[in-house]
Amino acid sequence: MTEKRKRVKEDNTGRRELPIGVFDSGVGGLTVMREIMRQIPNERIIYFGDTARVPYGSKSRETVIRYSRQILRFLQTMEVKAIVVACNTASAYALDELEKETDIPIIGVVKPGARAAVEATCNGRVGVIATNATVDSGIYTTYIRQIRPEVEVIGKACPLFVPLVEEGLWQDPVTDEIAVRYLSELIDSGIDTLILGCTHYPLIRDTIAKIMGEHVRLVNPAYETALELKALLEEKGIFCQKPPALGENQYRFFVSDGAERFKHFANSIIKYGILSAKIINIEEY
Amino acid sequence: MTEKRKRVKEDNTGRRELPIGVFDSGVGGLTVMREIMRQIPNERIIYFGDTARVPYGSKSRETVIRYSRQILRFLQTMEVKAIVVACNTASAYALDELEKETDIPIIGVVKPGARAAVEATCNGRVGVIATNATVDSGIYTTYIRQIRPEVEVIGKACPLFVPLVEEGLWQDPVTDEIAVRYLSELIDSGIDTLILGCTHYPLIRDTIAKIMGEHVRLVNPAYETALELKALLEEKGIFCQKPPALGENQYRFFVSDGAERFKHFANSIIKYGILSAKIINIEEY
Repeated sequence: MTEKRKRVKEDNTGRRELPIGVFDSGVGGLTVMREIMRQIPNERIIYFGDTARVPYGSKSRETVIRYSRQILRFLQTMEVKAIVVACNTASAYALDELEKETDIPIIGVVKPGARAAVEATCNGRVGVIATNATVDSGIYTTYIRQIRPEVEVIGKACPLFVPLVEEGLWQDPVTDEIAVRYLSELIDSGIDTLILGCTHYPLIRDTIAKIMGEHVRLVNPAYETALELKALLEEKGIFCQKPPALGENQYRFFVSDGAERFKHFANSIIKYGILSAKIINIEEY
Repeated sequence: MTEKRKRVKEDNTGRRELPIGVFDSGVGGLTVMREIMRQIPNERIIYFGDTARVPYGSKSRETVIRYSRQILRFLQTMEVKAIVVACNTASAYALDELEKETDIPIIGVVKPGARAAVEATCNGRVGVIATNATVDSGIYTTYIRQIRPEVEVIGKACPLFVPLVEEGLWQDPVTDEIAVRYLSELIDSGIDTLILGCTHYPLIRDTIAKIMGEHVRLVNPAYETALELKALLEEKGIFCQKPPALGENQYRFFVSDGAERFKHFANSIIKYGILSAKIINIEEY
């Protein structure tokens, strides 16, 4: 399964209509898929959500790498032309390892988010809100300082945001109260740019924006990732300009558990009738 | 690994000092372990928390059964004399399946909780708060009606309680607010007994008690399970009356991920210095 795919660079024209593989620990990566659908609407996409083992954000580096490798092997069986790691935690911990195992072009959400934040900040103070794992990894700091070493990066883990979003409390006094607690130290630190470093957070962007105030620019790595993906596909000569045929199944969804529950949440994020999600046993890959 | 262990009933005296296996999806089962430690303090215990795949409460029956089977196989390698499924979701979905695979005596937390609730209710109206999976399974209703068919059981899923507890907000206005929302329909329904149907909930018992009021009796299945375990061990002739030797490692902890994080939380629940937790790869079982 880990066999390298030398064909990728050798025969690109034939690969243009192959799907892009997008994966996440669960449903959050759908906010990334949504941006890809908006920005490059001709592409076919295979989405995998690891709903049997979600969340990744409280788990260790070793575990996140093991899980991500299994997903890579699954996506390899699906003949994808490129892979998007649409999960900040998996991007933080596993991207380097995955790149070693495949020649398929692969991008995460962290690097595009870091790059956009460097462009956005005027005062050189950037905040990152994310899961415990992403904050602990220090990955945003690393990438940001590779571009501009003098930027100060302040990370803050916000572990309740994901369950609050998944409970549907996108606009709610409880979410407001929790957000005030999490964000007040970032306000005090004088940042002028804040990275939404977890795929669920764009869904409570309004709440975060209201608390941070107008002078703080919010960076959504999902948006930046879709831009970068488009550039990557063009560079590799595998950008698809041909719309899918009538009746073609342009978007396909796979999960490791709870297909019905996934469908319900997915349809609240993506304005595209998700007709079905197929369950696979990811531990077998 | 699934080989049946006929020895269990044949040679009991030699098994008295073997450990009891206690397992949970993560840290919640420690509230069950705590009760076992209090009520039968001579027993050795091996605790396993599936922290790499926690939580179970939002996952499907098939997945919870598959995970529970792997844990059973791990515990079989540890020569346990009895097993406690210290997770309501796993008890609800997997207990029957596990019983088919082993002769080791095995109990869950649901049946003892159901029995205690039937004894406690005067007006025949019982509430159950639990995870989505446990509520959806209808398992408390099934067990309660096996004992007293006319009892009315009202289930209510409270998915935010676990993350709130794990974030340490045991006594907090946010937890109060969420609890009021979850519990108000149970108050309106006129129950006189409420089962804390998830192992995390005893940690916010005070909040729940305050909102439900004095006339509602709270049933903690962890407490009832420890009582039932003691009776089971006595009945099977494998109750241990000999205290552990000086320096013996009476309590051993295994997890599938994040040993340090587990230790930190565990030490806040169990007043016993948890010196170490060992990581195992549960997918290999």
